[in-house]
Amino acid sequence: MSPTDTLAFMPPVPGTPAPAPALPASYTGRPIITLTTDFGTSDFYVAAMKAVLLRACPEARLIDVTHAVPRHDILCGSITLERAVDGFPPGTTHLAVIDPGVGTTRPLLVAEINQQRVVCPDNGLITWSWRRHGGGKAYELTWRPAREPSNTFHGRDIMAPAAGMLAAGVALEGLTRPIEAPVLLQVSPTDGAAGTARIIHVDAFGNATTDLSHELLGERRIKAVRIKGRDLGRLKRTYWDVPPGKPLALIGSSGLLEIAVRDGSAAQDLGLRVGDEVNVE
Amino acid sequence: MSPTDTLAFMPPVPGTPAPAPALPASYTGRPIITLTTDFGTSDFYVAAMKAVLLRACPEARLIDVTHAVPRHDILCGSITLERAVDGFPPGTTHLAVIDPGVGTTRPLLVAEINQQRVVCPDNGLITWSWRRHGGGKAYELTWRPAREPSNTFHGRDIMAPAAGMLAAGVALEGLTRPIEAPVLLQVSPTDGAAGTARIIHVDAFGNATTDLSHELLGERRIKAVRIKGRDLGRLKRTYWDVPPGKPLALIGSSGLLEIAVRDGSAAQDLGLRVGDEVNVE
Amino acid sequence: MSPTDTLAFMPPVPGTPAPAPALPASYTGRPIITLTTDFGTSDFYVAAMKAVLLRACPEARLIDVTHAVPRHDILCGSITLERAVDGFPPGTTHLAVIDPGVGTTRPLLVAEINQQRVVCPDNGLITWSWRRHGGGKAYELTWRPAREPSNTFHGRDIMAPAAGMLAAGVALEGLTRPIEAPVLLQVSPTDGAAGTARIIHVDAFGNATTDLSHELLGERRIKAVRIKGRDLGRLKRTYWDVPPGKPLALIGSSGLLEIAVRDGSAAQDLGLRVGDEVNVE
Repeated sequence: MSPTDTLAFMPPVPGTPAPAPALPASYTGRPIITLTTDFGTSDFYVAAMKAVLLRACPEARLIDVTHAVPRHDILCGSITLERAVDGFPPGTTHLAVIDPGVGTTRPLLVAEINQQRVVCPDNGLITWSWRRHGGGKAYELTWRPAREPSNTFHGRDIMAPAAGMLAAGVALEGLTRPIEAPVLLQVSPTDGAAGTARIIHVDAFGNATTDLSHELLGERRIKAVRIKGRDLGRLKRTYWDVPPGKPLALIGSSGLLEIAVRDGSAAQDLGLRVGDEVNVE
Repeated sequence: MSPTDTLAFMPPVPGTPAPAPALPASYTGRPIITLTTDFGTSDFYVAAMKAVLLRACPEARLIDVTHAVPRHDILCGSITLERAVDGFPPGTTHLAVIDPGVGTTRPLLVAEINQQRVVCPDNGLITWSWRRHGGGKAYELTWRPAREPSNTFHGRDIMAPAAGMLAAGVALEGLTRPIEAPVLLQVSPTDGAAGTARIIHVDAFGNATTDLSHELLGERRIKAVRIKGRDLGRLKRTYWDVPPGKPLALIGSSGLLEIAVRDGSAAQDLGLRVGDEVNVE
Repeated sequence: MSPTDTLAFMPPVPGTPAPAPALPASYTGRPIITLTTDFGTSDFYVAAMKAVLLRACPEARLIDVTHAVPRHDILCGSITLERAVDGFPPGTTHLAVIDPGVGTTRPLLVAEINQQRVVCPDNGLITWSWRRHGGGKAYELTWRPAREPSNTFHGRDIMAPAAGMLAAGVALEGLTRPIEAPVLLQVSPTDGAAGTARIIHVDAFGNATTDLSHELLGERRIKAVRIKGRDLGRLKRTYWDVPPGKPLALIGSSGLLEIAVRDGSAAQDLGLRVGDEVNVE
């Protein structure tokens, strides 16, 4: 379920006489730009990009997704970025910079997905957004600043100005050229029909998210989940369906199969890591 | 002393001819929503709530209080949340999500305190705000999204939409029903008359805050503070009233009795923890 | 090169017929206030200042530079603050609070540098901004709140109200008095002519920044860099000019000589610390 759906209304209690309050159907505010990086928050790097974004788009609303993606971890950044593409309203611009190839000739990407735009290195960072939202349109960011950019910080010198300009309404055509497809990592949402899923992300609570998608699963029921020789039984509904300290499998808030430990860390308690296989029946 | 008071003016130096500059008496800006959680900042969870808040209230100013409340630590969250209720101007909406009971039937709360509103689980998180600001009005948040919310993220699916709608001016009546009182933890501001206070919070610097309130103390003077067998003498005015590395007791910036170590960590150096008793005379 | 320059345009590819899109020459948005502190982000302290800033300047855009300056590390704060003074547009107000002397009579500073204003303790925090941008005008912040401020949090009680008022357009004259010069640390940008540079900052990636400025270097070429007995050879252009795990010297994104390790941490791998000497030829 996407957060959008949660904003529709129903009467809070049966018999409420007045009509339930209603939200505007779509976002009507100033342009939103989100930021997802592996920069950390102890240096000036994030603010350096924000300074450029505000110059380029003074009206922009700047929302940090996270700056704690593990350094150079493109898969982790990709999973996180997809959540932003899922959650934010149409028209949002996402700036995502996990860029181990900075200073080389690796191309930069502008992607249109889910009525939003993503500006990022074309190094696979777009993968999970692209695959989960049914693809989109891909462009190479060809715009470059008049003076030579630094060789170590294209986030500030090329991608932030471009993201800011796009958010401010500058036409895509002046900044990019169409390309066939972006670089994609070897990871896709699965329906679990083959009997396995794979851990693609571990969050700060130690919850392990897999590539098994509730939507692809459709009406099919999962009767048993096993990981590392442990039988987690059938899917649970909430953490409270098991005693404290016990592991469980459930559909997490991202609509993916998740392995968790109630009041604990599945990653630590079960020794889970990205790439581990999960058996489903 | 509340920060509000600090915004009144007095001439900067005696004899200044021109009248001192004056601030507007009250906040006149766009609606403020603060966020206090135990989510950390390395995942998408905080941004997920912000995306919903912006959909519900496009004009909202989003201010992070902290997302580093220790996981499921309702007392710590409660102390932090009170600071926000104290510091922000009338009309502010506070969204606070420390929610170990997510997915169960624990009720959700909307509280009106200090001319502000707090949206949070009704699990005691409101305690310190409620007790320090003389109570308020309590409501159960009965609004639910049209489509079933996730079982693991009511912050995004129920509380954020409600907080956003309230900030946007949707009437409380459509979203809630009045209740007698919120769930409250067993912690209250004390006047120290009984000779003891208790540590209720330890901050990142290792300063230990107690439940002894300067306001309740009134004109009464504290002549001696002892903790864990150590005599800290009378209340000091600033950290500089003791040599580097030495412990002291003073009234902290929150108006509560605080145990600190100059240029050091009281928590570490004195082995202080939440719940420890402090003797006052 | 300053980030400003990167916002000028050139045609993205040779032969593009339409004129390249153009950005407004200067920032036209609401007043920007940046925040740089050693408060961390786990307590209410940062939000306490933001609450005051919004009361004083409801239109302000609040941008966090960082709150992870090591506690009381004025040099580190100074280096970080300079990046903000470099990156943000004219008219920006910077609030910087690394204030080990809080509660004493150490003066507070308002500095005008690079068409921006900085509000901070007059304890050397301004040093790197002052030295790298050719000095400016210095004022003592004489404004005090009508009611006595706390003795432990002048950031909230004196500096934030002043920064907010300045951002809101209150005249400097009503809040300050001119002084000759601010307190400055013993650190200055160098041209390396004497054959040495010094490490002044280590970032979260372990990159070590020195005081050797590309601008001061001018046309002079660096042919060899040595540190702790290791020969790093000539300046490289990007991290990719050496194999993974190997150290290199290059001009970093701040225009200063930087020691880095490709895909690694120079600080850790080479045992670098602030104050270490670098030999340049």
